[in-house]
Amino acid sequence: MPSYHAPVKDTQFVLQHVLNIQNYANLEGFADATPDTIAAILEQGAKFVEDVLQPLNQSGDQEGCTRHPDGTVTTPKGFKEAYQQYVDGGWGTLSAPVEFGGQGLPHVVSIAFNEYMISANMAFAMYPGLTHGAISSILVRGSEEQKKTYVPKMVSGEWLGTMNLTEPHCGTDLGLIRSKAEPQDDGSFKITGTKIFISSGDNDLGENIIHLVLAKIVGAPDNVKGISLFIVPKVLVNADGSLGARNAVSCGSIEHKMGIKGSATCVMNYDGATGYLVGEREKGLQAMFIMMNAARLGVGQQGMAIGEVAYQNAAAYAKDRIQGRALTGPQNPEAKADSILVHPDVRRMLLDARAFNEGARAFALWGGLLVDLAHKAQTEEERQQADDVISLMTPVIKGYLTDKGHETATNCQQVFGGHGYVEEWGMSQFVRDARIAMIYEGANGIQALDLVGRKLAQNGGRAIRGFFEMVSTLCAENKANADMAPLITPLEKSNGHLQAATMWLMQNGLANPNNAGAASYPYMQMMGLVCLGYLWAKMAKAAQDALAAGTEDETFYKNKIIVAKHFAERHLVETGSLLRKVEAGSETIMAMAANDF
Amino acid sequence: MPSYHAPVKDTQFVLQHVLNIQNYANLEGFADATPDTIAAILEQGAKFVEDVLQPLNQSGDQEGCTRHPDGTVTTPKGFKEAYQQYVDGGWGTLSAPVEFGGQGLPHVVSIAFNEYMISANMAFAMYPGLTHGAISSILVRGSEEQKKTYVPKMVSGEWLGTMNLTEPHCGTDLGLIRSKAEPQDDGSFKITGTKIFISSGDNDLGENIIHLVLAKIVGAPDNVKGISLFIVPKVLVNADGSLGARNAVSCGSIEHKMGIKGSATCVMNYDGATGYLVGEREKGLQAMFIMMNAARLGVGQQGMAIGEVAYQNAAAYAKDRIQGRALTGPQNPEAKADSILVHPDVRRMLLDARAFNEGARAFALWGGLLVDLAHKAQTEEERQQADDVISLMTPVIKGYLTDKGHETATNCQQVFGGHGYVEEWGMSQFVRDARIAMIYEGANGIQALDLVGRKLAQNGGRAIRGFFEMVSTLCAENKANADMAPLITPLEKSNGHLQAATMWLMQNGLANPNNAGAASYPYMQMMGLVCLGYLWAKMAKAAQDALAAGTEDETFYKNKIIVAKHFAERHLVETGSLLRKVEAGSETIMAMAANDF
Repeated sequence: MPSYHAPVKDTQFVLQHVLNIQNYANLEGFADATPDTIAAILEQGAKFVEDVLQPLNQSGDQEGCTRHPDGTVTTPKGFKEAYQQYVDGGWGTLSAPVEFGGQGLPHVVSIAFNEYMISANMAFAMYPGLTHGAISSILVRGSEEQKKTYVPKMVSGEWLGTMNLTEPHCGTDLGLIRSKAEPQDDGSFKITGTKIFISSGDNDLGENIIHLVLAKIVGAPDNVKGISLFIVPKVLVNADGSLGARNAVSCGSIEHKMGIKGSATCVMNYDGATGYLVGEREKGLQAMFIMMNAARLGVGQQGMAIGEVAYQNAAAYAKDRIQGRALTGPQNPEAKADSILVHPDVRRMLLDARAFNEGARAFALWGGLLVDLAHKAQTEEERQQADDVISLMTPVIKGYLTDKGHETATNCQQVFGGHGYVEEWGMSQFVRDARIAMIYEGANGIQALDLVGRKLAQNGGRAIRGFFEMVSTLCAENKANADMAPLITPLEKSNGHLQAATMWLMQNGLANPNNAGAASYPYMQMMGLVCLGYLWAKMAKAAQDALAAGTEDETFYKNKIIVAKHFAERHLVETGSLLRKVEAGSETIMAMAANDF
Repeated sequence: MPSYHAPVKDTQFVLQHVLNIQNYANLEGFADATPDTIAAILEQGAKFVEDVLQPLNQSGDQEGCTRHPDGTVTTPKGFKEAYQQYVDGGWGTLSAPVEFGGQGLPHVVSIAFNEYMISANMAFAMYPGLTHGAISSILVRGSEEQKKTYVPKMVSGEWLGTMNLTEPHCGTDLGLIRSKAEPQDDGSFKITGTKIFISSGDNDLGENIIHLVLAKIVGAPDNVKGISLFIVPKVLVNADGSLGARNAVSCGSIEHKMGIKGSATCVMNYDGATGYLVGEREKGLQAMFIMMNAARLGVGQQGMAIGEVAYQNAAAYAKDRIQGRALTGPQNPEAKADSILVHPDVRRMLLDARAFNEGARAFALWGGLLVDLAHKAQTEEERQQADDVISLMTPVIKGYLTDKGHETATNCQQVFGGHGYVEEWGMSQFVRDARIAMIYEGANGIQALDLVGRKLAQNGGRAIRGFFEMVSTLCAENKANADMAPLITPLEKSNGHLQAATMWLMQNGLANPNNAGAASYPYMQMMGLVCLGYLWAKMAKAAQDALAAGTEDETFYKNKIIVAKHFAERHLVETGSLLRKVEAGSETIMAMAANDF
């Protein structure tokens, strides 16, 4: 049975030595996030996920969710009790606003805890994850009354939330939505339609579920401009805040999926259900995008979080598995065989995993901090800059981290040989669970298109220019440092490749949008590599500084530098070939007639 | 529900236009393999797998195998009847020797049919696949009496075969085997021990199962040199060939696996079971390797065969799914949306799949032909040359084709968006089934090590030199052909990268074997790319020739050239980055202490 230990020390290294969040103590919420407070939260969070959530991961996968004939859904054994502990522990309140019952801590702190929860039990983590997305939409676009009515109970976790976009005939292209909203005399709407792939659409964890639903008000344009957003509670809420009648929304069936089986993925039927408009009419998509951008960071984190737990188990297996001999002669001559960790290729798989996981953790936490800074930084310029970077990075965090997280889990499964293929060992579940993150919240191809088709060009390319500047500055600052050369030289080279690819897109993508589309995926991969290379250089520098200052923990910092080098030698080098894929253009890709596929 | 149509035309294109098997009519068995005979076999084979095997694929996955309290195993509903049709149709006899009831056709013909069987139902195809492996070992190393007793019934398929290597504590390192063989007065042995991961270890498909079992004879060296090979029939065979008593071998349990659930993966308990020595004492490993080399080609084919069926379904979905608009403006303005095939990135996924599948098909069929030529070519020199190439290529076919086949299935699943994650659509099964091929018959890391540590250096590097010569000759011959330039120029460049990597290995791998180990995986990937690039160049040339000669089927050949270009632009370009990974060496990979993983 697989195990998991939350990497608290690694998280703290990134927060304190790389992102230096202590420097932001002057910003709202950050003053309370002292190193001691963060340490306490992370350690208690680690204990909660290790003791309560992780033991339910494999059993949850085996049992899955059950839909009953009355349309209610039961989560796997133990989930309800664990969720109650989540509520009682206030784990949903970390970075929620104080006025709605939250602790008002920086977003980056809840991002840090979120990783642990996903590693321990991704299916479980879906329930609070969706609730958080729903909260953000109501907070930004909801009326004061809506906030007061719904948000406190959602922050505490007593009520859960969902997002309802997809319909059987449309996922990405929301303009095709058929769900209808009929205005009622009291200002509410009757919502009718079918939504599919609704995570936590029904479940037995809380007292109520607040559905956020996209639909078209009768008479609205039948395209993407006619979409409005509605709150549709599972149980209607009385004026005094008590629960009233059951609303006309129910789960029609649940999907049998490849993974995250403990998360109920529902077909939701709205049969004239009472709904309340959120924000302005026909501005539903913008409201939903607030939720989706937050969700995309969380989904990106799912990739790395599963990569982490898969790595931990593969490393333990490799140390334990005694078989064969080192190529350079027996390392453990008194035994009949050496551990498989003597083999360079086994180490390659494990170091690839670490190079990705630790780099991706820094990326996700940086993303979390940027969200904070975009809202709370002192000057408009700083806020703008943070917003530029996080807007640019969101599709990369979502697309690149989920692709590589799944690949990492697959490689870690490989370390187990035949045992990796047997469900009992748990590696298959990590791979199956990680797979969905590449698909939902906008399939990764859509992320690539968002990056190339929208984010790059925004504000005349200000964000990408800012990013290149950031990387170049880091390189310039560390060029004279001989110890940093093995990291800085490849990073400069890869950053050059990314700049060349960007130039190619500017020259060829506008003239023929198919060139942009054809280049989008390798471009996103290049960007992911350069971002991780940038963060690895920062981590290596932080580790060098710690070593130079003297530390009791030399091994920890020396290993950071080894893994940074591995990233430079074995990951960053891919940008050269990716640039050639970008430059291949769209001629061949568009050449074949549709019927010939 | 997924569908499948055997790509008979593509197979024939490779056999007749690329491998030109009609040129070998002077060799044993080839005279009977006329284009008409092959066409008839492929068409009937297509019908059999499409009508009989494919409809059982998804139900077999859902139901899995069942072990009963008495140790017997039942295959999924319909498998037994389908297997009877396989036997009645003589599908196991294609390339088996005539004297044992086979049709004596070239091996490449059964390889061609094998692909279809795997695409239609990989779990089902495991049963005859293992039987064929067992047949080869007995044919090469068994006594005349053993051949007469076992082979005819195995060729017909009435009896099945298995290979028993792995034990709970050892897979790759067979020297650790604990199974014992005690000599009996009648010349037989009593076999005692436990074997795990035994595909088709027990099943209800035939009358008997002939287990080939590795064990150490009492008193033999307790290492890899002490291993002997035994035939252990499930039901003992009387002198007159009739079935006698049940032998003391039984299935202790079956594994719950990620995929190929219709294939029974058994723990086999040998409790003093009667066994018969195959070949010489303590030469068991060599005998088993005969079987494993044949099996490795078949496993490599599993990668591409699943890639093919995954592609077919993804292409059909992409044509059917109406959503969004082309980046260049509506292609289907009268509808509310275009098919997703208008998007360059969807085409990228599909063309990546085709570039791999069609290239890999050529690779597998070439491998099959080389097996034939290694045995049957007219001169010793030709036989030697074929043997050189197939020995070199076996780990590449196994390792590279299974990695890329799984990746292809994963990308094709991605085309389906959320539906790809729902079991009902069948794409998840392809991914889950394909995953095992990267692990069994020697995990892919072992294949890479076999390539770099054993095959490259054999006979002073004769085989790899021969391969470079082959690629260079093709390039030289077609350099002046302007239409071939988009394929030849990148191939020459990638071949240069592979030569540089080989040189690096010669210079650095002997001095420090960890350098060879650290370089092995990217080297295998480079080799896979150059092999496919070589075969794509040959296919493009064959297509050009057909177009120049005039054909009714211009589209077919023109599409071959488009896909060849896609391979050159989007796959071959990876060798540059892979070379840098090879040249990274082992210093960083070996730097971290084992305890720090």
